[in-house]
Amino acid sequence: MTQELPVDLQQLDAQDALKHKRAEFVVPDDIVYLDGNSLGCLPKSVPARLARAAQQEWGEHLIRSWTRNAGTQDWMTLPDRVAAKIARLIGANANEVAVGDSTSLNTFKALAAAMHLAGERRVLLTDTENFPTDLYMAQGLNKLLGHTWEIRTCQNTDIAAHLTPEVGAVLFTEVDYRTGRKLDMKALTAMARELGILTVWDLAHSAGAFPVDLNGCGADFAVGCGYKYLNGGPGAPAFLFVAGRHLNSAKPGDAAPVFLSGWMGHADPFQMARTYSPAPGARRYVVGTPQVLSLSALDEALNVFADVDMSVLRQKSLSLTDTFISLMEPLVQKHPLTLVTPLNHAERGSQVSYRHPDAQHVMKKLIERGIIGDFRTPDILRFGFTPLYHSFADVGRAAQGIRAVLDGQP
Amino acid sequence: MTQELPVDLQQLDAQDALKHKRAEFVVPDDIVYLDGNSLGCLPKSVPARLARAAQQEWGEHLIRSWTRNAGTQDWMTLPDRVAAKIARLIGANANEVAVGDSTSLNTFKALAAAMHLAGERRVLLTDTENFPTDLYMAQGLNKLLGHTWEIRTCQNTDIAAHLTPEVGAVLFTEVDYRTGRKLDMKALTAMARELGILTVWDLAHSAGAFPVDLNGCGADFAVGCGYKYLNGGPGAPAFLFVAGRHLNSAKPGDAAPVFLSGWMGHADPFQMARTYSPAPGARRYVVGTPQVLSLSALDEALNVFADVDMSVLRQKSLSLTDTFISLMEPLVQKHPLTLVTPLNHAERGSQVSYRHPDAQHVMKKLIERGIIGDFRTPDILRFGFTPLYHSFADVGRAAQGIRAVLDGQP
Repeated sequence: MTQELPVDLQQLDAQDALKHKRAEFVVPDDIVYLDGNSLGCLPKSVPARLARAAQQEWGEHLIRSWTRNAGTQDWMTLPDRVAAKIARLIGANANEVAVGDSTSLNTFKALAAAMHLAGERRVLLTDTENFPTDLYMAQGLNKLLGHTWEIRTCQNTDIAAHLTPEVGAVLFTEVDYRTGRKLDMKALTAMARELGILTVWDLAHSAGAFPVDLNGCGADFAVGCGYKYLNGGPGAPAFLFVAGRHLNSAKPGDAAPVFLSGWMGHADPFQMARTYSPAPGARRYVVGTPQVLSLSALDEALNVFADVDMSVLRQKSLSLTDTFISLMEPLVQKHPLTLVTPLNHAERGSQVSYRHPDAQHVMKKLIERGIIGDFRTPDILRFGFTPLYHSFADVGRAAQGIRAVLDGQP
Repeated sequence: MTQELPVDLQQLDAQDALKHKRAEFVVPDDIVYLDGNSLGCLPKSVPARLARAAQQEWGEHLIRSWTRNAGTQDWMTLPDRVAAKIARLIGANANEVAVGDSTSLNTFKALAAAMHLAGERRVLLTDTENFPTDLYMAQGLNKLLGHTWEIRTCQNTDIAAHLTPEVGAVLFTEVDYRTGRKLDMKALTAMARELGILTVWDLAHSAGAFPVDLNGCGADFAVGCGYKYLNGGPGAPAFLFVAGRHLNSAKPGDAAPVFLSGWMGHADPFQMARTYSPAPGARRYVVGTPQVLSLSALDEALNVFADVDMSVLRQKSLSLTDTFISLMEPLVQKHPLTLVTPLNHAERGSQVSYRHPDAQHVMKKLIERGIIGDFRTPDILRFGFTPLYHSFADVGRAAQGIRAVLDGQP
């Protein structure tokens, strides 16, 4: 295929400041994998780390691993060490991040805390098109609270108009999982704070995909996913951010409350006290015993980011998606494809999506051909771009494969 | 050391119906590991399974593994397959068990459901000496509910007297993590049901340690741990049991409610509906995306139980603890040791504990000598026995090491 590529793709690859990172991943060469926004590729160093965690840490050292080499290799502080690595990628301090459980559970924890802090302003605003589990967790929490809150929804293109004084908290996903549209987190958070509204941001399609600056935006809470752009492995532990101002509140009643209060978030777990006292930092949101094997894989995977300048990664991401949109343009002219991802860079995540009336069938055909994207109901073809391991040649191969499927080539 | 062992230990080992199982585990030979009730030993087949999960399932097949080889190897039904393996060990049907998250979180889910079903009888009875995280999760839930419940405690030696008509739900751990005392789950559950009290049993020190018969007892809910006697690895996913009668209730309002309602417990996750509908079985208590690597290790580890008769395992467990107690008897006469584990078999789990005024220091010395037990506040020396991989020779070595430490031998 390479000889068919337009020359500028080769040039783009030659000039790619991140091209050396691809060698750090297992990138299957029989497919074009455009689903790193669903499950990131395997960093090559992870299997050896997993083997060490299983054979040495578990098999040989057994329970001694909870405290062995404390601070650098012990399981007890492993969630905190992973939190520190994620903190750097999302504009947070290490003690503002907790790692563990799933994005769904962390959404519950953050929402419960934010809604408690919101007091009597019992309206939670979220968006109609938010990822379903965000809506479900809000519904479950409200059911537990006896339906004392109103869960209000608006379109995510019209949030600003819905930030009104009766709203106590908001739950928004920065990048729409279907359209790839990116919200202006900084402006929306500023508007919310102006009105005393607490913000909970879902960074599922943000963390690791481009620079995020939670403290720069003044966010209150955030949650995010370890297995998409952070490449932590299937169902990798998720993260939760809580702004330092909620951890160090002068009034104890204002401090970020914990409702899923487990022993691993206790200030002194092995004291075995009968009453829960939260750990000083975000660690309070680590609930039960962490799933150490999965957490070790995430810890190892995050090392890939150590030498990555996130603004360079963002530039490459935009260049990848620009290139894809440009190569797809002739197909949009010819087929019933509608680009739903914004052309404006500031409003784009790291994916490109099209509507197609027969999207489910088209994606099935694409996958059979080795072009792995996602179908999302009702009619979305979604292609994720991951600057750490994608080349511009991949983009060319993807566009060629999509053309072949849409044109009905064998 | 072997030549010093009393002959009857050798005989007991020769007659051990489970002696072939030890070869299925990595059992470090430089220590006597009496902490399988904190973290079970590594089953030898787990590292290869983890390597396959990472390298083939994640690395090569990527997101296709969610549905690949559906029903036998796919990640989507992996929690259900693991649930079926655990169900057999705890007297449950496969669709009554959900696997994932931590024991702490599953305690929250089960308590929230039981307390909801209890209606206006807002007293939760638990025991003073329950494992702290059980108490913490109950406290956090009650805080979320606006302290509308009374959390009442009693000693676990005096539960029957506290089962009174105003109690709506109870949360008890079958085996006390400090003393090793085992409650009469069948009798207590029957008494509770007679009064319309819903039961939540914590099986942390039961599942995999001896036969459990949840449906035979008529239990409503139960939770348990994957990393102790089930040998699933550090922080392995936990489980939750909900009796079928709460899943198939004729009145929808009586069905086991879900408050941590995530997309993986939805009846149709990929429908991406905006409203949560629970899956038909216990699967509804799987919340977010499972941590597949840790879950794969647990799945593999459970295969060790496939050919194990749990009543045979129980016989060996009692024989191991009887033998240990007997070998320790001369030390009890000589040192300030007090046996706190019941001699009555029906009241004993699979551990033996002693009080000692200097327990923390004694355990430190024991661990230095390679006798790995646990210190538990304030003064408990705890020794766990795991019939799948312990020999009677291990029991002899342990008693010899304890004697050496208590006698101040070098």
